[in-house]
Amino acid sequence: MSRVDGRKFDELRPVKFTKNYTKHAQGSVLVEMGETKVICTAMVEERVPHFLKNSGKGWVTAEYSMLPSSTNTRKIRESSRGKIEGRTQEIQRLIGRALRSVIDLEALGERTIWIDCDVIQADGGTRTASITGAFIALVEAINSVKEAKKITYIPIKNYVSAISVGIVNDQPVLDLCYEEDSKAMVDMNIVMTDMKEFIEVQGTGEEAPFSRDSLMELLRLGEEGNAQLIALQKEVLGSLAEEIGKNDKDVTGEK
Amino acid sequence: MSRVDGRKFDELRPVKFTKNYTKHAQGSVLVEMGETKVICTAMVEERVPHFLKNSGKGWVTAEYSMLPSSTNTRKIRESSRGKIEGRTQEIQRLIGRALRSVIDLEALGERTIWIDCDVIQADGGTRTASITGAFIALVEAINSVKEAKKITYIPIKNYVSAISVGIVNDQPVLDLCYEEDSKAMVDMNIVMTDMKEFIEVQGTGEEAPFSRDSLMELLRLGEEGNAQLIALQKEVLGSLAEEIGKNDKDVTGEK
Amino acid sequence: MSRVDGRKFDELRPVKFTKNYTKHAQGSVLVEMGETKVICTAMVEERVPHFLKNSGKGWVTAEYSMLPSSTNTRKIRESSRGKIEGRTQEIQRLIGRALRSVIDLEALGERTIWIDCDVIQADGGTRTASITGAFIALVEAINSVKEAKKITYIPIKNYVSAISVGIVNDQPVLDLCYEEDSKAMVDMNIVMTDMKEFIEVQGTGEEAPFSRDSLMELLRLGEEGNAQLIALQKEVLGSLAEEIGKNDKDVTGEK
Amino acid sequence: MSRVDGRKFDELRPVKFTKNYTKHAQGSVLVEMGETKVICTAMVEERVPHFLKNSGKGWVTAEYSMLPSSTNTRKIRESSRGKIEGRTQEIQRLIGRALRSVIDLEALGERTIWIDCDVIQADGGTRTASITGAFIALVEAINSVKEAKKITYIPIKNYVSAISVGIVNDQPVLDLCYEEDSKAMVDMNIVMTDMKEFIEVQGTGEEAPFSRDSLMELLRLGEEGNAQLIALQKEVLGSLAEEIGKNDKDVTGEK
Amino acid sequence: MSRVDGRKFDELRPVKFTKNYTKHAQGSVLVEMGETKVICTAMVEERVPHFLKNSGKGWVTAEYSMLPSSTNTRKIRESSRGKIEGRTQEIQRLIGRALRSVIDLEALGERTIWIDCDVIQADGGTRTASITGAFIALVEAINSVKEAKKITYIPIKNYVSAISVGIVNDQPVLDLCYEEDSKAMVDMNIVMTDMKEFIEVQGTGEEAPFSRDSLMELLRLGEEGNAQLIALQKEVLGSLAEEIGKNDKDVTGEK
Amino acid sequence: MSRVDGRKFDELRPVKFTKNYTKHAQGSVLVEMGETKVICTAMVEERVPHFLKNSGKGWVTAEYSMLPSSTNTRKIRESSRGKIEGRTQEIQRLIGRALRSVIDLEALGERTIWIDCDVIQADGGTRTASITGAFIALVEAINSVKEAKKITYIPIKNYVSAISVGIVNDQPVLDLCYEEDSKAMVDMNIVMTDMKEFIEVQGTGEEAPFSRDSLMELLRLGEEGNAQLIALQKEVLGSLAEEIGKNDKDVTGEK
Repeated sequence: MSRVDGRKFDELRPVKFTKNYTKHAQGSVLVEMGETKVICTAMVEERVPHFLKNSGKGWVTAEYSMLPSSTNTRKIRESSRGKIEGRTQEIQRLIGRALRSVIDLEALGERTIWIDCDVIQADGGTRTASITGAFIALVEAINSVKEAKKITYIPIKNYVSAISVGIVNDQPVLDLCYEEDSKAMVDMNIVMTDMKEFIEVQGTGEEAPFSRDSLMELLRLGEEGNAQLIALQKEVLGSLAEEIGKNDKDVTGEK
Repeated sequence: MSRVDGRKFDELRPVKFTKNYTKHAQGSVLVEMGETKVICTAMVEERVPHFLKNSGKGWVTAEYSMLPSSTNTRKIRESSRGKIEGRTQEIQRLIGRALRSVIDLEALGERTIWIDCDVIQADGGTRTASITGAFIALVEAINSVKEAKKITYIPIKNYVSAISVGIVNDQPVLDLCYEEDSKAMVDMNIVMTDMKEFIEVQGTGEEAPFSRDSLMELLRLGEEGNAQLIALQKEVLGSLAEEIGKNDKDVTGEK
Repeated sequence: MSRVDGRKFDELRPVKFTKNYTKHAQGSVLVEMGETKVICTAMVEERVPHFLKNSGKGWVTAEYSMLPSSTNTRKIRESSRGKIEGRTQEIQRLIGRALRSVIDLEALGERTIWIDCDVIQADGGTRTASITGAFIALVEAINSVKEAKKITYIPIKNYVSAISVGIVNDQPVLDLCYEEDSKAMVDMNIVMTDMKEFIEVQGTGEEAPFSRDSLMELLRLGEEGNAQLIALQKEVLGSLAEEIGKNDKDVTGEK
Repeated sequence: MSRVDGRKFDELRPVKFTKNYTKHAQGSVLVEMGETKVICTAMVEERVPHFLKNSGKGWVTAEYSMLPSSTNTRKIRESSRGKIEGRTQEIQRLIGRALRSVIDLEALGERTIWIDCDVIQADGGTRTASITGAFIALVEAINSVKEAKKITYIPIKNYVSAISVGIVNDQPVLDLCYEEDSKAMVDMNIVMTDMKEFIEVQGTGEEAPFSRDSLMELLRLGEEGNAQLIALQKEVLGSLAEEIGKNDKDVTGEK
Repeated sequence: MSRVDGRKFDELRPVKFTKNYTKHAQGSVLVEMGETKVICTAMVEERVPHFLKNSGKGWVTAEYSMLPSSTNTRKIRESSRGKIEGRTQEIQRLIGRALRSVIDLEALGERTIWIDCDVIQADGGTRTASITGAFIALVEAINSVKEAKKITYIPIKNYVSAISVGIVNDQPVLDLCYEEDSKAMVDMNIVMTDMKEFIEVQGTGEEAPFSRDSLMELLRLGEEGNAQLIALQKEVLGSLAEEIGKNDKDVTGEK
Repeated sequence: MSRVDGRKFDELRPVKFTKNYTKHAQGSVLVEMGETKVICTAMVEERVPHFLKNSGKGWVTAEYSMLPSSTNTRKIRESSRGKIEGRTQEIQRLIGRALRSVIDLEALGERTIWIDCDVIQADGGTRTASITGAFIALVEAINSVKEAKKITYIPIKNYVSAISVGIVNDQPVLDLCYEEDSKAMVDMNIVMTDMKEFIEVQGTGEEAPFSRDSLMELLRLGEEGNAQLIALQKEVLGSLAEEIGKNDKDVTGEK
């Protein structure tokens, strides 16, 4: 038995990153995972939130939104509702945590990187695509700070990417599209680094609880998927790829 | 003395319409006016607002938003603010009025067309680009209703397009980019039909009042610009172009 | 064919200004245009909004509201709704722009003039009546600043007034009452100075597009109406009338 | 020692009711208590709130607001704040309770009377003036229902009026103006009927607790003040005055 | 005829104070009046609201809320509604006023005491129980400030307690439970000091007006009830009881 | 090296359930995990949300809140803020999912169970304590429906409990108190059934990514903790314990 779009169980959808998608943000990437399309941007603001004033530390914060026309049935704007849904808040908190986990906020200095992930077409996996794409935008934005000579290196310790896994028709699968997601028994999002370590594991079995064995298999799929995504991130970053993981000593030549 | 981007005073920026830009909306167009880029979509909902229930009439309503990264300095989301700015409300009311003025709402029947204009990159003239692009999306969406055999023809009476004009350095100019707009003494938006009639004229001289002669010259520029835009709309609509302006009698063969 | 209230097509309704209508505001005027009655007040606050701090410039801002009992069917309070309608926002932005366009904000100094227009009885033309009445209140309020010796002259460059025009039953008419307004094909608000220049022209043909010839006729009616209103403003201002249009040199005697 | 405005301790300020102050509401009264001026209107809506549907009973509800220019320092609009202050809510609940206490809601039938009290000039005692004035507007509005033959008599059982009393400089006084109110040790609002019975007694000694004897004296002043107000209400109501207190039997002639 | 729970007309329900109910607040009391249970806490914050900055004075403010499960029918959270009900605002303003009336805010110094009254089970009289319980928490919290040597004595001038009285079946009664409250003709809350003086008297006869004689009898019941409550407060405060009413001179030994 | 409170690494804090804690809710439990105290209630409403009308299915929904005094520094009420924080929304969505995952919503019938978890004292692990306590309240509430003869058995398929685990000072530990939680490198919440299956696994390594081995150890601790909690749930449920996991056939005797 195969998947709705003919993929193998452990196969990602086609992934595409378009850098410099728009011109105002210092980092701007259109990420496509199959038919899911998200504009991820990173903008630098030379100040920090109130709770970090005079701390010497920077901040990374993320917002996420879906265009009304991004879903099959028109999605009411949260600005019209006058409030932000719980789901949206969960997602933007997740994106923010994921990116902050790989950045050295002290080395960034007192500035804020605003990440915006705006879904223009949704077909499952928008939050994981957002993380994976936002990482590229983040690197580009921080590189612009470096190019402006305000920092001497890019203080990002690790790559970070994310992918969804789940159990559909009793079968663990990688990178669920919307049709699969809507009938999954178990749904899990896995955020990882290039060191094969976990940053976030969020698995839910609302439709049915899941065993430890299933969990192990889902983790394995997630590890494979993230490894592939990070390879693609490196490719699209080009010469910037080797800047990730450097630290102060690499730059100053100290030992 | 020439314009910041070398254009002639009565010259439009390059205009581009990309149809079927996303897949869920029945009409979906990316409109580009120079560096201004707006996703305009039209989605059909088979019901009407409360005040039109059982009236036999349909409705067209519009929403407008700018992505946070669409502007030079990041724009705070209206969903985060918890309220919609006055400027946004003015624009979405304008777009809705413009489109409703050319559609026969009775012939549309009891359904709503939701227009969404989401600016992904702003460089002046986003509201007029929204109207011009949304018209294409509207035609596509209503055509989908016709193709579903729910109506027998496209009940759109006229083309509608919009363009900005203004006085910059004492010189009336057509289609202001952001840099021009920010130093204009007079700013005017002109919405017109293919019959060379006006649907909306909104001119403001906050920086300096303007004479009747200036107003005449601005109207003339607007007429020229809109005529060019409507020619481009016809081109991009292809075979649908000739469906505009038909009425019930054209379809039934009655006289 | 005559108008519903027997007026000629180019005839204003009876206009009345009652100065010093209430006691707390430095400027307070009840303006009546026929049965439309608006309390226009101007209050001086000795500080400016955040974006003007230390700029040396002052500010004029306006708010507009309708009492629930001002309309035929009770109007729900915007404070009860918890948000301000788009229409209200458009109107208060319009009033603010109109008044700012004739004042020298640098000469005003770092203070804010708060304009409040509260409609106690509505019969069409409330936004234009608000502008016309608010101008008187503004002059009175700024005069109080002058009398307090904080400024040496009234830094208002021009008179400003506003009137509505429209096309009713194919006939262009001046100063529409509610009954005319509700069946108008075209509706236009025209804000002008005593120099016969335009500050704002807002025309809408939602019911039907309008030709350039109609537009010309509407502008002509608006010019006539505004000239009469400005004559009445001068009369009611009495000795203050001649203070308008003075500048620094008139006061200091410099050349 | 006399009062700031020369009144005797048990003397009301000049009271004036202007009926038919505006034209759209069925009842519309400008009430003036000295320099306090409130527009009180009553509008009839032919339906009831959800919780009274099909109960056969009517409803009376009240809203209260102060114009921004009604106070010495401009008062921020509650619509701009986006929420209604606690003080406003207390006052509108008080007005509603006071009026509902004298009306036979079953005899009114399934309709709502909307009371709006809009303060155009405040000088102390706005909530009590609102109640006293709103009563007149209520009678007028209900009379319009009777004149429309929807009810056969005015189902109001008693007159209701309200007045403030307080202790200023250790002296109990009647009908405090703003200057007195702002330095009162004890502040009390007393709502009464023409039967010399109490509907509401609200006394607060935030600045200093008060003895039973003081309370007795304040109640006595309040009784006197309300008796005078009710006499004035009867006068202004003219021939309608004798309709208050009638019941079904008076109308049908049954015994 | 006796009361629903067999009490005498002038009999309080069993009263119980549990001090140190939770650990984080400096003062924390569970107050029980029959089946009504309220957690009253007082927390000290070493700063004051904006309007008291640099005034040398402190502040006491109160918030009140009911758990959704505290009432027979689940009560919707005000956080879910997005706004605070008028009733809640009235109650928290009342609690704040009552407590501020007995405290010397200058002697407290520039700090705020936050009072929180959270009803975990409601059976009538929650606002009066809140005041009575919050007083204990307030004393405990201020004592913690004294123990921290930031002040030299407890600047509370008087005890304060509150009780409800009302007329049920034409009979004045003390301390109404919910069942009595819901059928009361007259409902009154009386806040008093240990000097038998009134801080707040709030009586409402929405169902029926009440005579001066009834008012006298209700006041008498309230005086008795409050005297008993204050005796209980003294008991539970133990050795702190004698600290109330002291002033600066008691501490310094000055005369 | 031992834990701040002397516990072993895999040791729960003392757990206590107090049933029938308040009287209005059908299920009401005070759950204590060490110094963390949460009132968990379940109330039955005989109708379902809009999206389930006429579906034959019931619903379980949860709300979570912290009293302002539950934390060391006073927590601002979400009703005062006017909006619900992202953290709160995440938690109440988690509680709702966890409970819905073990209930047969069709067998419950068209009724809603409202779960309220109100934290009165917080010392870490409030969300997991909420789930564990809410399960007891849920069983009690559904049993009340059964006792009212509206359903024939308790349609709960499994027990559900939750516990936090984390890595503190490089040591995986069970059931973190606040002090541990605030310095944990990795924090994970694990929701499980009595079948040793997972309902939800949420692990976050914002401070540091974690390896697969660490994840395995955390899962093992979570399994042990949840097994102990479920044993305690069974004990406190008494005779109701054996009703869990029954199904329709058990009741009807069918095979």
